[in-house]
Amino acid sequence: MSNNVYSVTEIVGSSETSISDAIQTAIAKADKSLRNLEWFEVGQIRGWIKEGKVGHYQVTLKLGFKYDK
Amino acid sequence: MSNNVYSVTEIVGSSETSISDAIQTAIAKADKSLRNLEWFEVGQIRGWIKEGKVGHYQVTLKLGFKYDK
Amino acid sequence: MSNNVYSVTEIVGSSETSISDAIQTAIAKADKSLRNLEWFEVGQIRGWIKEGKVGHYQVTLKLGFKYDK
Amino acid sequence: MSNNVYSVTEIVGSSETSISDAIQTAIAKADKSLRNLEWFEVGQIRGWIKEGKVGHYQVTLKLGFKYDK
Amino acid sequence: MSNNVYSVTEIVGSSETSISDAIQTAIAKADKSLRNLEWFEVGQIRGWIKEGKVGHYQVTLKLGFKYDK
Amino acid sequence: MSNNVYSVTEIVGSSETSISDAIQTAIAKADKSLRNLEWFEVGQIRGWIKEGKVGHYQVTLKLGFKYDK
Amino acid sequence: MSNNVYSVTEIVGSSETSISDAIQTAIAKADKSLRNLEWFEVGQIRGWIKEGKVGHYQVTLKLGFKYDK
Amino acid sequence: MSNNVYSVTEIVGSSETSISDAIQTAIAKADKSLRNLEWFEVGQIRGWIKEGKVGHYQVTLKLGFKYDK
Amino acid sequence: MSNNVYSVTEIVGSSETSISDAIQTAIAKADKSLRNLEWFEVGQIRGWIKEGKVGHYQVTLKLGFKYDK
Amino acid sequence: MSNNVYSVTEIVGSSETSISDAIQTAIAKADKSLRNLEWFEVGQIRGWIKEGKVGHYQVTLKLGFKYDK
Amino acid sequence: MSNNVYSVTEIVGSSETSISDAIQTAIAKADKSLRNLEWFEVGQIRGWIKEGKVGHYQVTLKLGFKYDK
Amino acid sequence: MSNNVYSVTEIVGSSETSISDAIQTAIAKADKSLRNLEWFEVGQIRGWIKEGKVGHYQVTLKLGFKYDK
Repeated sequence: MSNNVYSVTEIVGSSETSISDAIQTAIAKADKSLRNLEWFEVGQIRGWIKEGKVGHYQVTLKLGFKYDK
Repeated sequence: MSNNVYSVTEIVGSSETSISDAIQTAIAKADKSLRNLEWFEVGQIRGWIKEGKVGHYQVTLKLGFKYDK
Repeated sequence: MSNNVYSVTEIVGSSETSISDAIQTAIAKADKSLRNLEWFEVGQIRGWIKEGKVGHYQVTLKLGFKYDK
Repeated sequence: MSNNVYSVTEIVGSSETSISDAIQTAIAKADKSLRNLEWFEVGQIRGWIKEGKVGHYQVTLKLGFKYDK
Repeated sequence: MSNNVYSVTEIVGSSETSISDAIQTAIAKADKSLRNLEWFEVGQIRGWIKEGKVGHYQVTLKLGFKYDK
Repeated sequence: MSNNVYSVTEIVGSSETSISDAIQTAIAKADKSLRNLEWFEVGQIRGWIKEGKVGHYQVTLKLGFKYDK
Repeated sequence: MSNNVYSVTEIVGSSETSISDAIQTAIAKADKSLRNLEWFEVGQIRGWIKEGKVGHYQVTLKLGFKYDK
Repeated sequence: MSNNVYSVTEIVGSSETSISDAIQTAIAKADKSLRNLEWFEVGQIRGWIKEGKVGHYQVTLKLGFKYDK
Repeated sequence: MSNNVYSVTEIVGSSETSISDAIQTAIAKADKSLRNLEWFEVGQIRGWIKEGKVGHYQVTLKLGFKYDK
Repeated sequence: MSNNVYSVTEIVGSSETSISDAIQTAIAKADKSLRNLEWFEVGQIRGWIKEGKVGHYQVTLKLGFKYDK
Repeated sequence: MSNNVYSVTEIVGSSETSISDAIQTAIAKADKSLRNLEWFEVGQIRGWIKEGKVGHYQVTLKLGFKYDK
Repeated sequence: MSNNVYSVTEIVGSSETSISDAIQTAIAKADKSLRNLEWFEVGQIRGWIKEGKVGHYQVTLKLGFKYDK
């Protein structure tokens, strides 16, 4: 990993079921257009409330991937 | 949403099973006394340890609701 | 001011026109139910975009007022 | 403590004598209207100067109490 | 909004007249190349001084838009 | 708890399945060498991506335990 | 700019009319005694409330200027 | 206070006896050269240890005073 | 001090009487097992409330000591 | 610079020799695909250890460039 | 790396010559007592001044190593 | 050091060659007008890019010196 350059992008995933699922949703989507995704960091965890329950979670992630433009 | 004023309150939910359940517990409780809960933000996630395992999780949330006093 | 106790509450004001107007909107609303508002601190400034322009601003404030319950 | 929900409120106490006294003043006042106060966290410590000395201290606290509305 | 993924990009707008105008300038420019801009968050507000007055403001924003690559 | 001194140590747990499992893994491991673990606080949540999915989560915790050296 | 040393000073401007005006007031005052003011960064935005409205805004700035003592 | 400009300076006071005394020491010293000291904010509290006890406390303060150059 | 390496450890002291006493308690305890304690930094100040008063203070410290393993 | 809009991107450079070299590596790589790079800000400095020495440094940067899409 | 638990320790290295050398000094010292050092993160960079020059640098690091007690 | 009061000032040094050189440049300049400089803390590290390389580094420092006005 020592000579590489990585790019970091910020993305928000959402899910009605769980925080982990919101993370997976974001990564799966990003994987379609960004090659070589390597790591993620969770930023903010938030969500919307619907009828007194969590309507859906929103998780902000930073994604790191190899910079090979 | 453009002309509204919202109030933000801080609450701590706990659960023996998961982080998500602690969030749901806090929102369900707050929903009994606060009308129009709209969003939440997770602050600190912490917990207590019992016999070498998570005894229970404690999640601090900010809750936003329409200010209509 | 030396012997007083103050309470601090968090509120979000919004406005289609400016950041300052969002602040004024929040304070005017809070003033209807909280006596003795004395100071404010701006937290987050954010907003929603509509057709390539600012739809409305949302400003999070902390409001301090004399605690006299 | 495992099934409880707690509420967190922010308050500012002041004292001419010490930081600790400002904390005590705030808690004593809050105790008159909030049942079941359990913990506090010190936020900002500041104060006003009078004739080259501390006129009074102001300490911002978060107070946690059992949510039983 | 529950099943969507959003992307977040950082941008700096500037204006000789006001903070709000710097925000508008940045959003208008970004709107030309990014579809579905939905929200913004103000980061740093700074600027350059010219002859003892504000020469221009620079406002750093995060912009959220629907991720549909 | 009033006369005790606690020590705080930092640890990183990982899991292929969930954030909560990464927390449990870390606590279980620490429990083998540290007596009297009492609380934890979640710091950073991050992870590694493998074939477009979460490969494993990594959760940084602070652990508090009674200082009885 | 490459060989210069800059000094940074902190100042608080106030205004009854707007955040921008508070910034201008502070810079105009500092310009009377500090030569070569070059940039500013906004820190905290706060203010005092009077009769349910913003009495005046207070904006904390850092000011950078060429160090030529 | 509405039309004034304030300057903010940073100072570190120390004391062998207490945190409050370190604050008083710093303010008393600053008062000899800065006119119109009005407020302070505590930043970092730290100190040096001597023979297993607090040797002295060091408290970093910001001091605000009327800018009248 | 120029060629040394220091280790930093985190500890929580508590006291029923004051913040300073909680600091002293933590340092006295750590001094029994760690040689060459040199400095401390105060992190969080918090506490527990008992019958409308401070039951005890809890102060989190970082302690620096010469690394001579 | 007064009427421009800038974009900010995040990148991680690495180097076996020094922090400065990791910064240069990242900027050189980004310069191949981004026109008009103007400034950088260092975020996190970290690295990997190999046989008791720094294996390589990793430096996270924000890069600002003129937005001319 | 997926099933491992890591421990994180904080250390301060110093050097009269450079920031990088202070990092190397700390890691070399820690490597003598901690097996399996894997990564580091730079916290605070500071130092002491001697006769108008840097006397020595002090760099605070977090070090991660495999937890195998 | 126990009875002293220190003042802290903020300064920005720049250098075309390295981060350390930018620190030295700032300290050397400050040493001409401030007596008794004792310590420094690095704040932000940033810089300007010229033809795809670092044009110059800019390092923000806090400088502590004995307060003897």
